[in-house]
Amino acid sequence: MASLVKEAMGLATKALLNSDLALAEKIIQDDSIIDNIQHELDARTISLMARQQPVASDLRTLVTSLRMSADLERMGDLAHHVAKQARMRYPNCAVPAELTGTIEEMGRVAVAIIDKLSAVMEHRDIVRAVELETDDDEMDRLHRKLISTLLDDNWQHGVEAAIDMTLLGRYYERCADHAVSIARRVYFLVTGEYNNASND
Amino acid sequence: MASLVKEAMGLATKALLNSDLALAEKIIQDDSIIDNIQHELDARTISLMARQQPVASDLRTLVTSLRMSADLERMGDLAHHVAKQARMRYPNCAVPAELTGTIEEMGRVAVAIIDKLSAVMEHRDIVRAVELETDDDEMDRLHRKLISTLLDDNWQHGVEAAIDMTLLGRYYERCADHAVSIARRVYFLVTGEYNNASND
Repeated sequence: MASLVKEAMGLATKALLNSDLALAEKIIQDDSIIDNIQHELDARTISLMARQQPVASDLRTLVTSLRMSADLERMGDLAHHVAKQARMRYPNCAVPAELTGTIEEMGRVAVAIIDKLSAVMEHRDIVRAVELETDDDEMDRLHRKLISTLLDDNWQHGVEAAIDMTLLGRYYERCADHAVSIARRVYFLVTGEYNNASND
Repeated sequence: MASLVKEAMGLATKALLNSDLALAEKIIQDDSIIDNIQHELDARTISLMARQQPVASDLRTLVTSLRMSADLERMGDLAHHVAKQARMRYPNCAVPAELTGTIEEMGRVAVAIIDKLSAVMEHRDIVRAVELETDDDEMDRLHRKLISTLLDDNWQHGVEAAIDMTLLGRYYERCADHAVSIARRVYFLVTGEYNNASND
């Protein structure tokens, strides 16, 4: 799921910046693949709970798996939303020239975060789980930069483009938030403690 | 949880429309009460899973409870976001006069949806669970109305107010989406089938 979500977010950013309709359509369609994996994974998790009657850390791991799949599914939805924005403005580009760099960076940071998240989940890597908090700060910085560009007196693209960019900024930011949320669950699973940075 | 979330969303709308700083602060603080109930509820659910070793429908009910608590917690976050918007623009009102009515209606629809959702959860009421799909259509209609007001040539409040209103619109819309998502889980729990309207 994580690698499909990573791919979807990377390609959605590309479709958005290049006004690539065919690519946007493909991402929109393929979201159901991620949804189906989630359904299948959750069914297997629940079946394991019923058949193996896990307790203690095994049970906590299965419960965490249900929650992580929900976060990943939602991250897939957000990639899907980015692709829909690309499609909605086609043949125009939804992103004005002065924000191309910021969106490109937000896409890059999102992909790097999801990539690191895969390692966190696969290896129960709590060092990288903590690093994701800092990576998310970078996303927040880019998000603030995006908003301040919209509020600049030089903004010439009017309200419609500002609405588009507000929503797009939120999709990237929420995607990173979900990744942090999964990383915190892994941290808790491994250490039995909440990460101190988790204060929001 | 549902009744606290309903209250928070109602009061957040009030704080927003009346630029009531004290009320906004109270909602922002009280969000941790909802978060704590979720933690306690989830701990009890997991403890039941470990001690009672449920199978079949009992297990499905407990898994659904974990998912519903996550949705409700998120709905509380969204009320908290609305209150933060009220605080950020204080002593000004974040909502321009021509959108007061729309936000008022969005707040009213959100509260009505959460109220109906409580009944759906308490009585496993699948008739009302299905009704929530239509109630959500009303929220979507209000959301479209809000966006078209922002895009109207008569919009005189500039980009900053448009960003505020875009985000606020999204908070109300997402709150209703989470309610629909819970209603669909209850429907599935009772009938063993997905509601046909659940195609998104």
